[in-house]
Amino acid sequence: MKTLPFVVLSPLRTENRAFTLGVAEMTLGEFSLRSRVADSGEGIGLDELQLAARNHGMLAEALRYDITPVGLHYLLVHYDVPAMDAGSWRLQVDGQVGRRLSLTLDQLRSRERVTMPVTMECAGNGRARLLPRPVSQPWLVDAVGTAEWTGTPLAPLLQEAGVSADAVDVVFTGADHGVERGVEQDYQRALPLHDALRAEVLLAYEMNGMPLPPQHGFPCRLIVPGWYGMTQVKWLRAITVSAHPFDGYQNAVAYRIKKSADEPGVPVTRIRPRAAIQPPGDPDFQSRTRFLSLGDHELTGRAWSGSAPVTRVSISVDAGTTWADARLEAAPGPWAWARWSWPWRVESPGRYDLLAVAEDATGDRQPVDQYWNLQGMGNNMSQHLTVYARAPQP
Amino acid sequence: MKTLPFVVLSPLRTENRAFTLGVAEMTLGEFSLRSRVADSGEGIGLDELQLAARNHGMLAEALRYDITPVGLHYLLVHYDVPAMDAGSWRLQVDGQVGRRLSLTLDQLRSRERVTMPVTMECAGNGRARLLPRPVSQPWLVDAVGTAEWTGTPLAPLLQEAGVSADAVDVVFTGADHGVERGVEQDYQRALPLHDALRAEVLLAYEMNGMPLPPQHGFPCRLIVPGWYGMTQVKWLRAITVSAHPFDGYQNAVAYRIKKSADEPGVPVTRIRPRAAIQPPGDPDFQSRTRFLSLGDHELTGRAWSGSAPVTRVSISVDAGTTWADARLEAAPGPWAWARWSWPWRVESPGRYDLLAVAEDATGDRQPVDQYWNLQGMGNNMSQHLTVYARAPQP
Repeated sequence: MKTLPFVVLSPLRTENRAFTLGVAEMTLGEFSLRSRVADSGEGIGLDELQLAARNHGMLAEALRYDITPVGLHYLLVHYDVPAMDAGSWRLQVDGQVGRRLSLTLDQLRSRERVTMPVTMECAGNGRARLLPRPVSQPWLVDAVGTAEWTGTPLAPLLQEAGVSADAVDVVFTGADHGVERGVEQDYQRALPLHDALRAEVLLAYEMNGMPLPPQHGFPCRLIVPGWYGMTQVKWLRAITVSAHPFDGYQNAVAYRIKKSADEPGVPVTRIRPRAAIQPPGDPDFQSRTRFLSLGDHELTGRAWSGSAPVTRVSISVDAGTTWADARLEAAPGPWAWARWSWPWRVESPGRYDLLAVAEDATGDRQPVDQYWNLQGMGNNMSQHLTVYARAPQP
Repeated sequence: MKTLPFVVLSPLRTENRAFTLGVAEMTLGEFSLRSRVADSGEGIGLDELQLAARNHGMLAEALRYDITPVGLHYLLVHYDVPAMDAGSWRLQVDGQVGRRLSLTLDQLRSRERVTMPVTMECAGNGRARLLPRPVSQPWLVDAVGTAEWTGTPLAPLLQEAGVSADAVDVVFTGADHGVERGVEQDYQRALPLHDALRAEVLLAYEMNGMPLPPQHGFPCRLIVPGWYGMTQVKWLRAITVSAHPFDGYQNAVAYRIKKSADEPGVPVTRIRPRAAIQPPGDPDFQSRTRFLSLGDHELTGRAWSGSAPVTRVSISVDAGTTWADARLEAAPGPWAWARWSWPWRVESPGRYDLLAVAEDATGDRQPVDQYWNLQGMGNNMSQHLTVYARAPQP
């Protein structure tokens, strides 16, 4: 097995140190493997299963709710949920600022208070449907949810700290710590300064009207509406303004769209358009295939895009041979999914292959075919749902 | 593909009807397959992955909490979470009773109110570690959690209804509906009458002090402390006293300990003893292997058994070669897990293979080797956790 250096990132990766675990046969590479794609026909391995058992998608029937109840919203935790103490917790604002800040939770809560529904999706949603399959968290199509986040806008806080004229990036550091592809790190992600200063960016301390649950970032997390989940740093402990583009692992190595390991790739940013189908009828336990009766049904679901409002949802019940437009309802907020519906009269028993495709106001249309890339990021290939309509019981 | 009859169970399976989906090539057997075990070396399949993405284990670091926060508690949903309306919901009590009852949620809430912490575990926990692996929900070791359930005792309600002298079983029917191994059904489980009348059995309407979340059975579920999760019927809508042993799918076919398909097997009932290790150190993202520093650590976790208090937890850090006894703390209640701890001085860099084994007051001791059975039920084989201790950084 290839031996990788054990790279420790300091908060802004200004000092990288390489070391082994201490004895020759025990290097980090033994347990922190390089990324790879699965072989043809290779089933999900133990490592992927461990991730799937911890992290979970939204149960598809929860598409019935405008706001996803806690515990049904998708969850991805890179390392462990850290033990946090709200009393001793402080949020540091530092780096290229005129005045460093250190805020308690009460100080944060006494600032301007904003609540907004935001649809959040993991950048890796759809990864396990790719062929070949990148080996990582094996999401199918359910890594999504919409919560009402309450917090205080970030921009006024940065203005109070006084961002220096040469600032380019804002780095957000969480309290979660681990190793990823050979790199030991606190979870850190940077946003370009102009994105960090957008009015809708929040430091959130409540989810659906309650203090953040531990797994969603208690006591405070970043919310950047429209961006994929990796941006929404949980267990936030520091905000660091930088005069240099951030080259930490989660920006420079992970979350890149690329076709091969040689390319630098382009960064993953905003959520690509997607429509999700609320599965009609009733399921089979093992296969999750659906069955339903003949007659009139309402096919419904949600659609979202991080760049612009969804303007169109197209439905097919014959595997993409013919299409119809669904009716779109108003979204509960500018950054939240919109409900769609389509009256479906099922006249014949048989198998139906359902597809739904969203298009947003920029003209970006969800593809029916896979969006393959090496890390399996942003694969918004249309969901494929099989339903059997059955004849009336004799 | 083998064609199975489409069997519809009426509430007490008094009338089974078989039919096909309506056309020759569309039988239920096409999507509702018989159970099987995986081939040697067969990875997790798409059907198992779909289940793992929906249902989720408890994040192991949540062993730090006496009471598991909502969303971290394990979740298994056989079919779909049904849409429930608390206003129109009624709980029926019928069958072999002197007086049928129909209760509103307010009526239930106005009865005697009891709160108790209960450790719940899925009977399939540990299934995916079996060799060969039964193909079903692929749990590793994390299908557990402890919640504070609030509700009203069942026994006084049954006494008010007047259980007839010939009653033997009490059947609990949920509002969830689907197909399983060729059988269409509402989820139903029966308890022997003497178990249903135990003082600790609750009709619960709150979890951790809040109304039940949709996925945990809103507005009301059964709680039978000490028994595996399949007993804890969610979205409860009817309680039916029966003069005959219940032969519905979830009692007669599923949740049986057996070695081959020919045997009737014995029913799965109470939770077998298990100790879980709160993973020390920090994880690698993909492999979930841990690394930690040299020096003094506290190895800790929880242990539980559904039959009797846990009396002993034994720890090994050398893959079972030597063992030591952990210190056991008082459990937060008679039906909840107990915290254990063991001071661990890590003196040398290297790999450590951690095991923990629980024993209860009946003398039942958790095995280190697998407890193989065809459905993968009650496999309480010891957890195996690999940790690398590393030398101090130069």
